[in-house]
Amino acid sequence: MNTPLFLGIDGGGTKCRARLRDSAGNLLGEGAGGPSNLRLDPDLVWNSILTACREALGHAGLPESEVRTVHAGMGAAGAGQKSAVERLLSRPHPFASFAIATDAHTAWLGAFNGGDGAILILGTGSCGYGGAGGQCRYVGGWGFEISDEGSGAAMGRELLRRCVWAHDGRIPSTPLSGALLAEFDNDLEVLVDWIGNARPGDYARYAPLVLEYASRRDPLGIALVEDSAAGATRIAMRLLELGAPALCLFGGLAEPLRPWMPPPVQQAIVPPAADALDGAILLGRSAASRRQP
Amino acid sequence: MNTPLFLGIDGGGTKCRARLRDSAGNLLGEGAGGPSNLRLDPDLVWNSILTACREALGHAGLPESEVRTVHAGMGAAGAGQKSAVERLLSRPHPFASFAIATDAHTAWLGAFNGGDGAILILGTGSCGYGGAGGQCRYVGGWGFEISDEGSGAAMGRELLRRCVWAHDGRIPSTPLSGALLAEFDNDLEVLVDWIGNARPGDYARYAPLVLEYASRRDPLGIALVEDSAAGATRIAMRLLELGAPALCLFGGLAEPLRPWMPPPVQQAIVPPAADALDGAILLGRSAASRRQP
Repeated sequence: MNTPLFLGIDGGGTKCRARLRDSAGNLLGEGAGGPSNLRLDPDLVWNSILTACREALGHAGLPESEVRTVHAGMGAAGAGQKSAVERLLSRPHPFASFAIATDAHTAWLGAFNGGDGAILILGTGSCGYGGAGGQCRYVGGWGFEISDEGSGAAMGRELLRRCVWAHDGRIPSTPLSGALLAEFDNDLEVLVDWIGNARPGDYARYAPLVLEYASRRDPLGIALVEDSAAGATRIAMRLLELGAPALCLFGGLAEPLRPWMPPPVQQAIVPPAADALDGAILLGRSAASRRQP
Repeated sequence: MNTPLFLGIDGGGTKCRARLRDSAGNLLGEGAGGPSNLRLDPDLVWNSILTACREALGHAGLPESEVRTVHAGMGAAGAGQKSAVERLLSRPHPFASFAIATDAHTAWLGAFNGGDGAILILGTGSCGYGGAGGQCRYVGGWGFEISDEGSGAAMGRELLRRCVWAHDGRIPSTPLSGALLAEFDNDLEVLVDWIGNARPGDYARYAPLVLEYASRRDPLGIALVEDSAAGATRIAMRLLELGAPALCLFGGLAEPLRPWMPPPVQQAIVPPAADALDGAILLGRSAASRRQP
């Protein structure tokens, strides 16, 4: 009988990553596949997962048939939606076992090895998760429209709003508002046409511009980064209040926003023990050990 | 030769209203038709306009053939978009003359009879317009995503955002947050599903709930109404700064928000001289007089 293998999977909207370890924790191989946000078609998601898995097995010099000995754990965007998880699990899979959780949960598992602590993802969207004593909770993470404080999408959208104010004369113009409005020919009709088709990722692409101007002391840039950091801080404060002794930040805005947060919050920030892929391996291992005690 | 008739038309997303006066200003009749936001199909919009016109002529006891003597003026939602106006004007019309402007412009024409002053619409959306010396400008009015300060949609969306905070424990719960979350079974997944299909009008339907709880001194309700009034005030302040000596408020939130605005702004508020339909008649009359001097 083969010794078990452990596969961690990180599933997002643009790609799916996988990492294979043996039972001693040695790295055997890694692989990647296509989109695997659980809101997508389940056959597409399984195809992305199995592509990434086959690549990791190949990388490890193992035959595809070894998939039967693999205990897989997956952290996936969209896994907070029960119906999406049920849709995925309605399809057969070739693994010895398969466990799934949200990408926030596997990031937290990796960061704190399943112990007390909290994570705060500050990317295109934002989400807080964690706690103490085995009790984890979400803080934020409910989407662009009503729950994206500290995210790049929120920063970009608020930039556009304030630039409308500057265009109207409600607030003074700054070099940042001038640069942004020039991109739209100083014509709010052009801006409104753009808004009509904008997705959160489109708004988030303005976050680097805001950070750049803030670093040059542009008053609007500073106000926007302060607002983002304040929103992220409110999430962080609640996570710490829930008993998390430490906080790990993830996402493209984590490093830029960290120095803008209040020192008592900054002092709680620690580097993660491991990444979300190793968190997914931990998820798969503990699910397998519960199955075969 | 018949004496000219003057028709004012107010075109919105759900209906089209029309009012007929003779050249002495006597009221002859009124009528209504279907949707006539200019973003809709131009044949549908013309059908709505002509339905409202025929009803007004009938109400006045005049034959349909009299439409040829009618100088029409229309204020329409969507008329800020040049391409939408061109699409409408690409179709032939039966009037002696036809002039079109935004619904904000005809509301302003009616309110100040074309003189110095500004209007502020606080409805599902919000929009400021006006000025002095014949120079009118828009302040706000660029849509739900980035420019809806003081509107019902913005108030409703911010309510939902703060209720997520209350659910997370980021802010204290209040009777208002409790009542709102109970509507969604205290389950943010249910709320997020609702958000997925929500239009500005859906958010705006929560504005009365906010106002009701604010009147009972609910802390969250008071904070939300204060924020809305502050957003409306920033638009009003800019309009007054542009030289408007007085301000008329329109829309369902005008009366509820007025007492929350700073007294120096409240003191600038006056009742409108006439409504948007009479503003549209004025638009049609002045366009006709420019054609036939």
